[in-house]
Amino acid sequence: MEQIRELLERIVQRVNINLREPLFDAGPYVQGLIPTEQMVKFYAFYGISPQYPLYFHFSRSNLAGSYFLGKCRVSDSILYKSDIRGDELKRKGDIFHFEGFEVPLLEDEIIHIKDSYLIKTLVHNNSHDPECLEEFNIRNTISMHYANIHGSAVEGCFMGPFSTVDLTTLHDCVIGEFVYLQKKELAHHQVPAGTIWISAGEAFDFHFCHDPDILKNYIRFQPGSIPQGIFMDFVEGLKEDFQRIFDVVNLDDFGSVPSSASLSRYAVVKPKTKIKENVLISQRAYIKNSWMGKGANAQENCFIINSRLSGYDVTAHGGKIINAHLDKNVFVGFNSFLRGNDEFQLKIGKNSIIMPHTIIDLAEPVAIDPDSLVWGFIRTQKDVEQNSVPIAEIEAVRGEFNRGRMRFTGNGKLFANAFKHRIDHILEANGAYFDGNNKKGHAQQSQKLSFNIIQPYPEGENKGLYPTIDIRP
Amino acid sequence: MEQIRELLERIVQRVNINLREPLFDAGPYVQGLIPTEQMVKFYAFYGISPQYPLYFHFSRSNLAGSYFLGKCRVSDSILYKSDIRGDELKRKGDIFHFEGFEVPLLEDEIIHIKDSYLIKTLVHNNSHDPECLEEFNIRNTISMHYANIHGSAVEGCFMGPFSTVDLTTLHDCVIGEFVYLQKKELAHHQVPAGTIWISAGEAFDFHFCHDPDILKNYIRFQPGSIPQGIFMDFVEGLKEDFQRIFDVVNLDDFGSVPSSASLSRYAVVKPKTKIKENVLISQRAYIKNSWMGKGANAQENCFIINSRLSGYDVTAHGGKIINAHLDKNVFVGFNSFLRGNDEFQLKIGKNSIIMPHTIIDLAEPVAIDPDSLVWGFIRTQKDVEQNSVPIAEIEAVRGEFNRGRMRFTGNGKLFANAFKHRIDHILEANGAYFDGNNKKGHAQQSQKLSFNIIQPYPEGENKGLYPTIDIRP
Repeated sequence: MEQIRELLERIVQRVNINLREPLFDAGPYVQGLIPTEQMVKFYAFYGISPQYPLYFHFSRSNLAGSYFLGKCRVSDSILYKSDIRGDELKRKGDIFHFEGFEVPLLEDEIIHIKDSYLIKTLVHNNSHDPECLEEFNIRNTISMHYANIHGSAVEGCFMGPFSTVDLTTLHDCVIGEFVYLQKKELAHHQVPAGTIWISAGEAFDFHFCHDPDILKNYIRFQPGSIPQGIFMDFVEGLKEDFQRIFDVVNLDDFGSVPSSASLSRYAVVKPKTKIKENVLISQRAYIKNSWMGKGANAQENCFIINSRLSGYDVTAHGGKIINAHLDKNVFVGFNSFLRGNDEFQLKIGKNSIIMPHTIIDLAEPVAIDPDSLVWGFIRTQKDVEQNSVPIAEIEAVRGEFNRGRMRFTGNGKLFANAFKHRIDHILEANGAYFDGNNKKGHAQQSQKLSFNIIQPYPEGENKGLYPTIDIRP
Repeated sequence: MEQIRELLERIVQRVNINLREPLFDAGPYVQGLIPTEQMVKFYAFYGISPQYPLYFHFSRSNLAGSYFLGKCRVSDSILYKSDIRGDELKRKGDIFHFEGFEVPLLEDEIIHIKDSYLIKTLVHNNSHDPECLEEFNIRNTISMHYANIHGSAVEGCFMGPFSTVDLTTLHDCVIGEFVYLQKKELAHHQVPAGTIWISAGEAFDFHFCHDPDILKNYIRFQPGSIPQGIFMDFVEGLKEDFQRIFDVVNLDDFGSVPSSASLSRYAVVKPKTKIKENVLISQRAYIKNSWMGKGANAQENCFIINSRLSGYDVTAHGGKIINAHLDKNVFVGFNSFLRGNDEFQLKIGKNSIIMPHTIIDLAEPVAIDPDSLVWGFIRTQKDVEQNSVPIAEIEAVRGEFNRGRMRFTGNGKLFANAFKHRIDHILEANGAYFDGNNKKGHAQQSQKLSFNIIQPYPEGENKGLYPTIDIRP
């Protein structure tokens, strides 16, 4: 038991050294948060496929319940039930384009996690840090439940539960719960809970902050206890359904999945679900009584219940869609929580963009027009007015545009295009446009994976630590 | 698919080069024997425990369904559902005693398997080759279903189904089906099917050969098909019961196992079985409706059905005991097949030694006296006369002693003592004598193991090959 306690203390110390400015002590948030017995109980696993360059190296770490795909090196860290998905890492020979620079990659990119403690965190995509192309670094960092580290190098940070750092290089920052941050680079900053901040410097800046009094109902986090609120209750309330998929080594196939679609064997699919062509359902996604139309997807930690995704709908990591009807080409951003109820479904028109970290939790029937940009907190049809704008309208903005608690400055056309291009890239990368021959993506390529299972020392001084493991082609 | 075919061809070529004298072609026996799809279907796994030095290295190999415990390096080999158990390997600093030599070990011993194809084979214990103490080598070797390689370095050999090589260094030999060989060293020899040969040079020599016309009912093996006969029918007929234990990652504990006993989570235990103190039940053992008395054990690939082991009974690797009543301190050797039936149990008196590869398959009630040495083939009480001797009688032999098809020469006292010491060592090593504080053995030490699971590339040119995996403390 000794070794793993020392490991945790060492991580806290390193994070705190980074966070001396802003002065922040991560210790009280994590000490005793996950008992060592839990760290011994759940196996870790990694995927093997000819599609991805193979390299894993684990040393002096606990990896309980975590999943790895793509090149990754983990040392002196605790990764608890985290997903470290590197299947879109850059490769040797790729050219990285950045503000006029064209930088060739000398080696395959690798995710390198050191002196960090990640809880139920998703790490995905390739790093957009132009200064360090071959290494996607996560160092001296603590991230809490359901955080997303997406294409972002992170050093010396504390990330609260349900926070997302996207395409950002982050140094020595404290990121509050349910923050969404996409800001190229940020250092020595404390970002308040519930902030959604997308900034491309001069080009545009989108800023919204959830009302703290409302947000605390959904997510709150105090030292000495696990995060609490509706988000946690919702996720924890369904976790029993995941038990079987982790208990069994090789599951039987789910009945009727088209050959062009991909359903992770670590996803939960409950009855009355229909999966159409080119659909991608990732590990730790949960689908129940829902229609997944052609090219729709459900990424990691998504929940889709009693809903219809008409086709080419994207549910980004951690998105939750309950009792909703989505027309075609709807994008639901990271960690968004959309909940109608049995009496009245939430309706979202085609081509709409639901911004990351949006909460729509209905108190009455609500319909959102096609081609809308939606953010914030919505309970009634009236709330929609203060938390959305027609995409055409924001595209026309040059300068300042405010609505409700949202502040926008810059070029609306560039802002909307950035989203549209990204959604299109996600659909393409996930194989939504596969025509039977061309345009293959994850849905077609991830179908055959071997999963290898690793566990720690079961007892003794090293209890909870995994042996040093090195895997190459 | 290409790589694994080339691997098999390369192994056959290397074995055949070794076996040019005696001229033997292993190819027809193994080509197409295990389809590649089977090699992809079953995961391999290795155990982690603070009790054993940790080192595994796997490269350019298929390991389908195989299990590893203790230091092991496997390269350019196919290990199909084999058990490579190195938990009794010698350790750095140990002194190896051999005919007056006292050789200190400079490193921990490691099992090293190269250019070999082992099918459902058990590799166990430490090597008794005084020439190569730190490496237990298996090279250029093919072994068939349920072979045992026990404390034996083996190079350039072909071993038939249900054959055992025990405490022997073997070069360039063809070992027939159901052969048991314990002969220090043997080279360029072809050993006929059904031979039981125990030789300590000048000291003693025990030799028996099963009647080929009888043996073929139990085991026969021709090129182009898997082995056939009663042994295979028996084992294959129960294999469905093993399905669940391999499907589930962490099984719930079997109800009532005393804290001093050990039941492998990869063993099958069926209803109405009673497990007493200090019992050891190893992986791939099968126990049904049986009484396992204090200190009794069932080693790998043992089947114990409708039987009573009164206490301190040893069932060596591959032993099968069906409808039998064993008094205390009975030893049942490797791969022995003891079968009573519902009407009349086989009865074996205390302190008896059933030699390895003995077949007792009852056509009428049979009882074996206490303190007997038993070998050969027994169906009736009359057969016992020609296939056994009181241990006291063989102990008195100096010179020649023949009975039935058995030939003995040498010092009977040394022969019997060798057996008795070994049985005692097995009981001690397995923890049968544990008193609550002292004399711990496998039963007490193997209780907590983590099992890590590894699988091969699922498709592509490397389909069936495992990635290169290196595991250290």
